[in-house]
Amino acid sequence: MNLKTYVPLLLVVICAVTVRAQEPAPTPKINLMPIPASVKFHNERLAVDSNFKVATRGHSDARLQAGIWRFVKRLEGRTVLTLAPTLAADDQMTQLIIHCQGPGQNIPNLRENESYRIDITRRQAILSAPTVVGALRGLETLLQLLDADREGYFFPGVQIDDQPRFPWRGLLIDVARHFQTMEVLKRNLDAMAAVKLNVLHWHLTEDQGFRVESKKFPKLHQLGSDGNFYTQEQVKEIIAYARERGIRVMPEFDIPGHSTSWLVGHPELGSAPGPYTIERRPGIFEPALDPTREEVYKFLETFLGEMAALFPDDYLHIGGDENEGKQWDRNPAIQDYMKKKGIKDNHALQAYFNTRLLKILQKHGKKMIGWDEILQPELPKDVVIHSWRGTKALAEAAQKGYDGILSNGYYIDLIQPASHHYVSDPLPADSTLTPEEAKHVLGGEATMWAEWVTPETIDSRIWPRTAVIAERLWSPRNVTDIPDMYRRLAVISLQLEELGLTHKKNQEMMLRRLVRHDDVGPLRTLVSIIEPVKEYRRYQQRPQTMLSPLTGVVDAATPDSEAARKFAWMVKEFLDDAPRYQLYRSELSHMLADWQTSGASLEPMIDRSPALKEIKPLAHNLSHLGETGLEAISYLKLGMPPPREWRDTSLAKLEEAAKPYGALEFVVIGSMKQLVNAAADMGRR
Amino acid sequence: MNLKTYVPLLLVVICAVTVRAQEPAPTPKINLMPIPASVKFHNERLAVDSNFKVATRGHSDARLQAGIWRFVKRLEGRTVLTLAPTLAADDQMTQLIIHCQGPGQNIPNLRENESYRIDITRRQAILSAPTVVGALRGLETLLQLLDADREGYFFPGVQIDDQPRFPWRGLLIDVARHFQTMEVLKRNLDAMAAVKLNVLHWHLTEDQGFRVESKKFPKLHQLGSDGNFYTQEQVKEIIAYARERGIRVMPEFDIPGHSTSWLVGHPELGSAPGPYTIERRPGIFEPALDPTREEVYKFLETFLGEMAALFPDDYLHIGGDENEGKQWDRNPAIQDYMKKKGIKDNHALQAYFNTRLLKILQKHGKKMIGWDEILQPELPKDVVIHSWRGTKALAEAAQKGYDGILSNGYYIDLIQPASHHYVSDPLPADSTLTPEEAKHVLGGEATMWAEWVTPETIDSRIWPRTAVIAERLWSPRNVTDIPDMYRRLAVISLQLEELGLTHKKNQEMMLRRLVRHDDVGPLRTLVSIIEPVKEYRRYQQRPQTMLSPLTGVVDAATPDSEAARKFAWMVKEFLDDAPRYQLYRSELSHMLADWQTSGASLEPMIDRSPALKEIKPLAHNLSHLGETGLEAISYLKLGMPPPREWRDTSLAKLEEAAKPYGALEFVVIGSMKQLVNAAADMGRR
Repeated sequence: MNLKTYVPLLLVVICAVTVRAQEPAPTPKINLMPIPASVKFHNERLAVDSNFKVATRGHSDARLQAGIWRFVKRLEGRTVLTLAPTLAADDQMTQLIIHCQGPGQNIPNLRENESYRIDITRRQAILSAPTVVGALRGLETLLQLLDADREGYFFPGVQIDDQPRFPWRGLLIDVARHFQTMEVLKRNLDAMAAVKLNVLHWHLTEDQGFRVESKKFPKLHQLGSDGNFYTQEQVKEIIAYARERGIRVMPEFDIPGHSTSWLVGHPELGSAPGPYTIERRPGIFEPALDPTREEVYKFLETFLGEMAALFPDDYLHIGGDENEGKQWDRNPAIQDYMKKKGIKDNHALQAYFNTRLLKILQKHGKKMIGWDEILQPELPKDVVIHSWRGTKALAEAAQKGYDGILSNGYYIDLIQPASHHYVSDPLPADSTLTPEEAKHVLGGEATMWAEWVTPETIDSRIWPRTAVIAERLWSPRNVTDIPDMYRRLAVISLQLEELGLTHKKNQEMMLRRLVRHDDVGPLRTLVSIIEPVKEYRRYQQRPQTMLSPLTGVVDAATPDSEAARKFAWMVKEFLDDAPRYQLYRSELSHMLADWQTSGASLEPMIDRSPALKEIKPLAHNLSHLGETGLEAISYLKLGMPPPREWRDTSLAKLEEAAKPYGALEFVVIGSMKQLVNAAADMGRR
Repeated sequence: MNLKTYVPLLLVVICAVTVRAQEPAPTPKINLMPIPASVKFHNERLAVDSNFKVATRGHSDARLQAGIWRFVKRLEGRTVLTLAPTLAADDQMTQLIIHCQGPGQNIPNLRENESYRIDITRRQAILSAPTVVGALRGLETLLQLLDADREGYFFPGVQIDDQPRFPWRGLLIDVARHFQTMEVLKRNLDAMAAVKLNVLHWHLTEDQGFRVESKKFPKLHQLGSDGNFYTQEQVKEIIAYARERGIRVMPEFDIPGHSTSWLVGHPELGSAPGPYTIERRPGIFEPALDPTREEVYKFLETFLGEMAALFPDDYLHIGGDENEGKQWDRNPAIQDYMKKKGIKDNHALQAYFNTRLLKILQKHGKKMIGWDEILQPELPKDVVIHSWRGTKALAEAAQKGYDGILSNGYYIDLIQPASHHYVSDPLPADSTLTPEEAKHVLGGEATMWAEWVTPETIDSRIWPRTAVIAERLWSPRNVTDIPDMYRRLAVISLQLEELGLTHKKNQEMMLRRLVRHDDVGPLRTLVSIIEPVKEYRRYQQRPQTMLSPLTGVVDAATPDSEAARKFAWMVKEFLDDAPRYQLYRSELSHMLADWQTSGASLEPMIDRSPALKEIKPLAHNLSHLGETGLEAISYLKLGMPPPREWRDTSLAKLEEAAKPYGALEFVVIGSMKQLVNAAADMGRR
C-alpha cells in the first residue's frame, strides 16, 4: 500500500472540480478525456505556428526527450507545420517549457507520481511535473487541448492541476486465444498512454495458446502456440516501449486451470495423463495442473523464476479463475493426497496450490495477484484480488484487508456501449468502506478477452470505449455526464487514429471485402445501425473456433452505434416538437429513406457475395424499418391518425426486426417503437 | 546469364495467347493481374464451400506448406468459411491438389523456374509446378480466380499455363530518405508476391540515412540514422520472409556519391574533411567517398564483406549514380592522384573506383549491379546495368554484352498514372536487338524513392500502380489493353487490402484528421479529382525537409484519380451521344453539382482547419468547375447555344483552375474543356 496521500488528493480533486463548477464563465467545450482534476480556462491563447519551440527546465533524460519528440511529431502531423527538430533554450521566446523535477520511478510502479500542472498564457505554456511520467501525462493533455480557428492553431489559455484518482489503470489484452502482433501491442500502448492508462496486463497463456518463449522449457511455446509467440527479446521490446510511456507491463500465467496449452508440451504437469492438444473452442475446459505433485512446483519454481526475471513489474498475475477441478475429482492419486493432508475440497486444494505459488513468487520478489477465486480463508494478506465479480466482492476483500482491482463492468469484449462501462466505479458513491479500507481499492482494468478478435479487428473492440474506462479510473468520481462523455469520445476517437489504430478505418475495408466489386454504401448503412449481439450470445448463435475467419459482418460491425444514438436523439427531439413535428424531420426522413433503399439494394448484392447470406433477413428488415419509420413520420406530419390496424402491423414488424441474425441485431428498435406509438396514439387525442 | 530457355519460352507464350484470342467462347471477364501466358476457360466450375480441402502430391516442404496455409487463410477471409486446418489426403475427395516436383532454388535467384499450370474441373483443381516458387505463383493466381454467385463461391473451370516473360521483376524501396518499418516491408512483400514480383531492391543508404546495422563499423548506423535502422536480426527476418514468398532481397549501398550519412560517423572516408551531418533536404549533394585512398577500399572491403555475408542474394547494388565529383574537383590530393595515374576525368575516376569495387565484390562472391553511370569503357562484362535512362541505354548496354534491367518508366514516386508505366517495356516491340542480345535484358524494377512518403502513405504510392508494372514484366508483350488493365486493377487493388496494405484506407483517415471535427465529405470530393503534381514539381512548389510532416492534402491525395477517369469517360459518352445528350447526363450533373456544393462547403471548413488553407483556391475552383460543367450540360441538353462570351469566360475559369496550389492540381481540366467547347460550338452548327 503506497497510497498514503491518496485520500487527501481525492479531496483536493473534488474541491477543484467544485471550484470549476462555480465559475463557468469563459469555458469553451472541453475536449479532454480523461477530464483533469481541475481545469480553469481564461481568455488568452497561445498560437502554434512554425516558430513553436519546446524547451526543458530542471530534470531531463532520454525518456522525457523521446516523449517530447513524439509530442512534436504528433503536433506536426495535425497542423502540417514543420517545427524545430531540436529543443530550444529555456527563455521568453520558447512557447512550451517542460519543467520536470526528477526522473520518478526507474521501472513504472504503483508509487509513481503521475501528477502535472499546465499553465498556458498568450506568451508561453508551462508544463510542470514532479516526474517524467507526470510530464508525459501532461503532454497528452496538451495534445488534446490543441484547437484551431481561422487565425491558426493554438492552445487555449488554461490552468490545469491534475492527478489520477486511482493508481492502477489497466488494459488486459488476451494474446492467447488469438495471437496479437507486436504492432498491435505497440499501437495500443500508444493509445493507452493517450488516455493515461498505466498498466498493460498481458494475458499470455490460456487453453488456446502459450505465447511467451521459455528458454527453460521451450516445449511450452514450441508446442503450445502454433508458432505464434513472443520471443524474450520481443517481450523486452514491449516492456521498454511501455516504460517509455509510463506504463507497467504485468504478465499473467493463468494456472492451475486454463492451462491446456502448457500440457501439450508438458503433459506430466497435468492432472490427467493426456496427451493434450491446443484447445480450439471457446469455453471453460477441464485440464488443470496437478497441485499434489512436487515436480509441478519444481517446474513452476523454475518457469516462474525465468518469467520473474524477464518481467520487471512488481506484480505477477497467476489467474486462478474458472478451475472446476473435474480432472482432480477423477484422479485417485489427487483424491488420496487430499484425504491424507486433510484438504476438504477443490477450493481448499486450490488454496493450497496458491499458497505454494505465493512462496515461489515471494522468493522471486514478486507480489501475487489473481482473480476473485483465489480469495480463500487461508490466503495471506499481501495478495491482490482482481475482481471479475464486482464492486461488492472487491469491497469485501478490502474489508478483509486485501488490495484489489476491478474488472467487472469493464469487459469490453462483451459489446456493451461505452455508457455501460462508464457507470462502473471501483469505489461507487454508495460505498460503505472506511477511508482506510477504501485505500485497498487500487483501480481497475478493461479486459480485452480475445475469443473473437484478430489484429484486424481488435482495435475496434478496445477503442474508443476503453477511453471512458480510463476516464472513470483517472477523473474525479463526479465526472458522470454521459452525453458530454459521448461528445468528447467522438473527438478522442479521431485523435487515436493518428497513433496508427485501425478502429475506424478497418471497418470500411472489411465491408469492401465483403461486397467484393459492389458499392459498399448499402452495407455501410445497414452496419451503421446494427451491433454484434452482447455478452456471450455470439458463440451461441454463430459458433466458430479459434481458427475460423473473423471477417464476417459481425466482425466488421462495432459496438455502441453512433448512428443509432443519433437516431434516438433525433426521434426524441422530433416527438418533443409535437404537434409541429418539424425538428429533425427532414434528417429523420432522409435517414429512414436511406434504410429503405439500402435494404432493397442489398438483396441482389447478397446474391453476388455468399458471405453476406447470413444477413439477408437483416437487409429485409432494414427496408421494413425505413418504410415503417417514414409512414410514422408522415402520419405525424399530416396530423392524420393511421388506420386502426397499423400499430399492430408495425409493432409486429419491429418485433420481427428485433430478432438477431448472423449474431447481429438492430439497435434502433426502441426509438422506432416510440415513433410508431406516437403516430398510433394520435387517434386518441 | 541463366536464361537459355528464355526466347523459346517467349514464343510459346505468344502462341498460347494467340490461341486464346482465337477461341473467346466461354471466356468470362478475367480478373487476373498479371495476365498468364495462356488461359483457357471452359464451362465447369469447382465449388468452394466449408468442405474445401487441399492436398499436396510429390514434393512438399515447410515453405510450400506455409504458402498453402496463407492461401487457406486468405480464402477463409474472403468467404468467411472455416476450412480444414490441415492438409488432406490426395484423393478424389480433395478439391485442390498441389503437385510440386521439387524445392527449386534454396535461395531465390535468377535461375528459379517460376512456371506453373492450373487445371480446374468441376471435381478438382490441380496446380502443378516444377518448384515450390512456381506453386506459390499458382496459388496467387488461384486466389485471383475465386468468384461467386448466388450458388456460392467457386473457381471457374480453366486451364492455365504460365511463366514469366522476364526473370527479374523488382520493386525498389528507398528506406533511407524516410525510414520504413518492418511492418511496411512485410506487407509490401506480401503484395509483391500477390502480383508475382520477385525482387525487393532494398535501397539502404543515402545522403539522408544509413539504415542497416554494421557490427564492423557501428558508427555508420549509430550516427547516420537518427536511430532508425534495421538490426542484422531484422534484416535476416526480412530475407526469410521474402524467401518464403519466392522473393530475392538485393541490398543497395549507394557509393561513391549519395553517401553523406556514411560520413557522419566516418568523415575520414570523404573527399572533403567534414564534419558531416545527416542531410535533411532532397536533391543531389556533393559528399562522396575518396576513391584515391587505400584506407577507403580497406573500409569497403570489410564493410561489404560483412554485408555480403548478411545478404545471400547473388547481386549487390552499388548505386554509383549522380555523383557530380565536386568534392573531387576541389581536393588537391585527389587531383594529384589523377594526374599521377593518368586518370583523365571524374568519370574515369569513378570507373577506377568501380573496378576496385568489383574486385571486392567478386572476392565475396557477389555480382555487381549499378545505375547507368557505372557503364564506362573499362567496365568488365559481368556487371549489370540498372537503367534509369531508358530502353535505349539498356539496349546499348545489351549490345555491348552487359546484362541490364529497366527502371525508366517505372518511377512510381513521380505520381504518373498506371497507364504511363504500363506502356514502358524493357524490350519494346520496335527493339532492334538480336535474340542473343535481347537475352541480356533481364527485366525491370519499379522504384519507390522516398523523399515524400512515410509508413502512413507509402502503400498509396506503391499500390495499386505497381501491379501493372508487375504485369508488364510477367505477361506476354501483347497484353496492352489499357481500359481492361484499369478494370482489372480496380479488382486487384481491393484484394491487396486483405494483406494489410493501407493504400485505400489511410486516405479517409488522413482526411478526417485534416478536417478535424467536420464532415469529411466535401474534402473527399475535392481530393477525388485532384492529384499531387507530377515529376519533381512538388518540392519546387511546396518545399519541405525529410523531417517535415507528410500529412497534408498533397499526401492524402493519390495518383491516377479513378473519379477523373470515370468523369472523362462519361463526358466522352455524353458528347458522343449528340444531339440527344442523354447518356450519363444525370450522372454527370450529379457529379458536377457535388463539386459545386462541396467547393462552397469547404470554404468555412478551411477557416476551422488551418492546415487546409493551402487548398483554399482549389476549393474555390472546384465550385467553378461544377458550375461551368452544369452550364455546359444545360446548354447542350436544351440545344441552346450559349452567349458569345461564355466560351471565353469559361475557358478562362478552366485556365485558372488548371493552376496548381499546395502542389496539387485538378485532373479533369481536359474533359471540362471538351464539355465547354462542345457547348460553345453549338452555335456553329
